[in-house]
Amino acid sequence: MELKNDLILRAARGESIERYPVWLMRQAGRILPEYRAVRAKLSGFKELVETPQFSAEVTVQPVDLLGVDAAIIFSDILVVPEAMGLEYQMLEAKGPWFEKTIRSEEGLRFAETNFDIEDRLGYVLEAIKLANKELDGRVPLIGFAGAPWTIFCYMVEGHGSKTFSESRKLLYTNPTLAHELLSRITDVTIQYMKAQVKAGAHMLQLFDSWAGILGTEQYAEFGLKYVDKIANALTEVPLTIFSKGAILSIPAIAKLNCATVGLDWNMDSVAIRKEIGDSRTLQGNLDPCALYSSHKEVENLTRKMLDSFTSKRHIVNLGHGVYPDIDPEKVKTFIKTVKNYELHHE
Amino acid sequence: MELKNDLILRAARGESIERYPVWLMRQAGRILPEYRAVRAKLSGFKELVETPQFSAEVTVQPVDLLGVDAAIIFSDILVVPEAMGLEYQMLEAKGPWFEKTIRSEEGLRFAETNFDIEDRLGYVLEAIKLANKELDGRVPLIGFAGAPWTIFCYMVEGHGSKTFSESRKLLYTNPTLAHELLSRITDVTIQYMKAQVKAGAHMLQLFDSWAGILGTEQYAEFGLKYVDKIANALTEVPLTIFSKGAILSIPAIAKLNCATVGLDWNMDSVAIRKEIGDSRTLQGNLDPCALYSSHKEVENLTRKMLDSFTSKRHIVNLGHGVYPDIDPEKVKTFIKTVKNYELHHE
Repeated sequence: MELKNDLILRAARGESIERYPVWLMRQAGRILPEYRAVRAKLSGFKELVETPQFSAEVTVQPVDLLGVDAAIIFSDILVVPEAMGLEYQMLEAKGPWFEKTIRSEEGLRFAETNFDIEDRLGYVLEAIKLANKELDGRVPLIGFAGAPWTIFCYMVEGHGSKTFSESRKLLYTNPTLAHELLSRITDVTIQYMKAQVKAGAHMLQLFDSWAGILGTEQYAEFGLKYVDKIANALTEVPLTIFSKGAILSIPAIAKLNCATVGLDWNMDSVAIRKEIGDSRTLQGNLDPCALYSSHKEVENLTRKMLDSFTSKRHIVNLGHGVYPDIDPEKVKTFIKTVKNYELHHE
Repeated sequence: MELKNDLILRAARGESIERYPVWLMRQAGRILPEYRAVRAKLSGFKELVETPQFSAEVTVQPVDLLGVDAAIIFSDILVVPEAMGLEYQMLEAKGPWFEKTIRSEEGLRFAETNFDIEDRLGYVLEAIKLANKELDGRVPLIGFAGAPWTIFCYMVEGHGSKTFSESRKLLYTNPTLAHELLSRITDVTIQYMKAQVKAGAHMLQLFDSWAGILGTEQYAEFGLKYVDKIANALTEVPLTIFSKGAILSIPAIAKLNCATVGLDWNMDSVAIRKEIGDSRTLQGNLDPCALYSSHKEVENLTRKMLDSFTSKRHIVNLGHGVYPDIDPEKVKTFIKTVKNYELHHE
């Protein structure tokens, strides 16, 4: 199916664009009353993730309601560890929760790799197909997965943490086990993302949410080494790597086989552009809290960011997922400001 | 009282030292069975903080048991917001919890400044006196407080958070209120730290635990502006500023009126030394998880860090508080390695 709006794909590839493309991480989610209405009919978050009809429906909502230049499939990075053998729950107050964890060789039996992706993750692939059908080529659809280090953190820790000290401990006490688990996650992630492309994803994004808790040396060894493998295996569609908090590793990430580097709201896109040149597209990175401002101020802050760009290689986004209590009208102001902005360079 | 070991004070001031001084953040705490024994007799964490006899006792424990070159008064950064009018609880599973929060001008009535420090925080000052008596000049005693931005985060949010979006929201929606609250915290903190020095603290440390959730511009405006005021008001004893996660702001911090800049475990002390020269002492920054390694590996990792130093201006520490489940024997290996290390430069 031909895409009517392929702006984001051109921006990712460094091709000519008439304006900057824009979308928001977590655009399909609690900010939209229409999402909450779908969610209210269901038993919980997981039913939404696991029912293609519903996840496709909420995937398309922000395209209709907000006017973004891309859809991202509604899913969760934890579907991968679950497919590998660690079931998760999403607790209302606590976030993700795993009954079992992997902290010894014995635990590796919960890190399977020899299974059929279609069999265990077919519901995501089905949702991608349904969403594309509904989108009818209006905008590209982004597929995604968690980066191995971040998935590793959940499989070892079993839940969110401020320090992920159990996960980091393993890097010192049993690096062989850590590498084995990371390799397995990498293998499954490659298969899973390839299946997403086959199902119809036009772009891919890797979320490395806990990149920032490692120093650069450890992140190179236990994080980027595996991201590199994934990037080299996925060359069919443009790939974005979003390593939250890994400020010092951005130059290394920009050398990987990816189209786009995602920036969090604390990263300095001007300095990073200067450092990496025009070799990669940058995605981001307005502070999500900026959308709590007045409409006028949202416009000013968005324009200030756009004015700072010195290259056409940008995909506009927030520097983190949009917070659930943000007024959707403010999101519209953000999007409108980007769409009305006149490109000031080639 | 004359100090028998003033190594850390000399290192902070950039004076001549015979070896690097060493201590650990959270050295007085759950890693020590002797601490847990004191704690077990009490109703909770707050009773320990608020009873000078006990907080002095656990303050001195690591000097006796681990052989560190400094003691740090056992207390909590949240005693300041409590003195200002926001009582806190320390919940076993959840961490700090405030019943009331400040999110509007009305809330400022819970941010008092006109009170007598001795009256509301006398128990900390008394603990400092008792601890010094017990230390008998063996090592210097460090006083501390939370930096205004971090205290602000708790007063606005009411508890810990991954994003502190309520606190950051206020910077956009009501910067005037934010500055008013930050000013008040600053005033009280200056008085409080001066009182600590008068009570006998030989050094001071400001903990800005949530510095890393702001971009550099916002951290300059809402964080460092107030740290600067505190640093300029406290010149009697050496001051350490520890802004966790604020990698890009380190050069700015090194320009403030402080003796020492604290580094977290993700910061690159070699690059930072190159950038700031020998103008400041650096404190840190072994990964706390390194202490989960074998004794041999703890020694190797510690030596590797020491070998990387190119200046005498270092105070050795971890890059974060020691984790409660670390074996105290590993801490001893860390300390011994530092003490046995031969200085390789002036």
